[in-house]
Amino acid sequence: MVKYPSGSLAAFRKPIKKKENSTRRPYTHRKGVNFSDRGMTLEQQINESNKYYLTEGIAVVHKKPTPIQIVKVDYPKRSKAVIRKAYFRQASTTDYNGVYKGYYLDFEAKETRNKTNFPLKNFHEHQIFHLSACLKQKGICFTIIRFASLERYFVTPASFVINAWREKDKSSMTLKEIVDNSYEIKSGFRPTLPYLKAVDKFIADRER
Amino acid sequence: MVKYPSGSLAAFRKPIKKKENSTRRPYTHRKGVNFSDRGMTLEQQINESNKYYLTEGIAVVHKKPTPIQIVKVDYPKRSKAVIRKAYFRQASTTDYNGVYKGYYLDFEAKETRNKTNFPLKNFHEHQIFHLSACLKQKGICFTIIRFASLERYFVTPASFVINAWREKDKSSMTLKEIVDNSYEIKSGFRPTLPYLKAVDKFIADRER
Repeated sequence: MVKYPSGSLAAFRKPIKKKENSTRRPYTHRKGVNFSDRGMTLEQQINESNKYYLTEGIAVVHKKPTPIQIVKVDYPKRSKAVIRKAYFRQASTTDYNGVYKGYYLDFEAKETRNKTNFPLKNFHEHQIFHLSACLKQKGICFTIIRFASLERYFVTPASFVINAWREKDKSSMTLKEIVDNSYEIKSGFRPTLPYLKAVDKFIADRER
Repeated sequence: MVKYPSGSLAAFRKPIKKKENSTRRPYTHRKGVNFSDRGMTLEQQINESNKYYLTEGIAVVHKKPTPIQIVKVDYPKRSKAVIRKAYFRQASTTDYNGVYKGYYLDFEAKETRNKTNFPLKNFHEHQIFHLSACLKQKGICFTIIRFASLERYFVTPASFVINAWREKDKSSMTLKEIVDNSYEIKSGFRPTLPYLKAVDKFIADRER
């Protein structure tokens, strides 16, 4: 039997000494303000959620770095390397993937200020292709769509988005279509965006 | 029932016309030369293999881009954006992950010119931590180690590497330890490095 390590970084790190006699001013805020998303972008909300899921040992999901073609790097004396010339490259996957209870997760996050529909041109061919390929390998694939003006968040199965994207003469998914085919989540505190609730639902649906 | 798309990019792309009347010279090579790895680095061998697995619809595995902190970007007129100042950031994961038959795969690739042992300092704390966290989520986690001077390749379960790394006063894994605890693979043609053979073995062991 293989002994799996606990996954806690605590085993590797020296204990951090707490600063004593902190003089930080107590924090007060205006009443009626919604702090659940605090002006964060969707990407920040997802990154915060992933950090929470990782720290709590619930899931391991990371955003992939932006792919860059490096052309020129300087190595100044006594300081770290500086990239002096580089280009953005076309990604070949979605932005997020990871593992949760043995399941492979793969998703793309998108937001719109529209109130009634989500334009399909927001999805790029390589994202649709990648989601299709991962579905074929039995990954759990979805999109997180934020209607910013409505403050509504939907976790939509990739199969639905792919079919809509491939449909001729279809330029957007209506809010109603998204409501009917998604799991809606509310932004909160811990985690900021509890998208794994939707994933639990997808897993239950699959195993039914 | 949701219809899963085929995952083939062919459905999206225009057919490519073949150039006719090619005048390319027939290729000949010296006898006795080993073409199975053709001087490729381990990274190139894995990337080639991933491309093959993707094209054949066998698995979806990608190398993660190097994380970069972008400081300054120029947008020259009539040409694409140029990054003029950026720094390398510390990665928080391993280099490769993906999905195969519903399983989450996560691995790191390392090579050495040593002939008798593999120095553990080649593994960084964040890689060990990430592999531990993914194991806890029931991912299939491993390392691909190449002994370059011996032209031998080993797929070693992450649990073994993590335990060795955590052992006090242990600075390397001996070749014998690696042989005893790994699945050895041979470099070939399609794919260049058939590491999924080892993954099949890990899956069979797990389900036994």
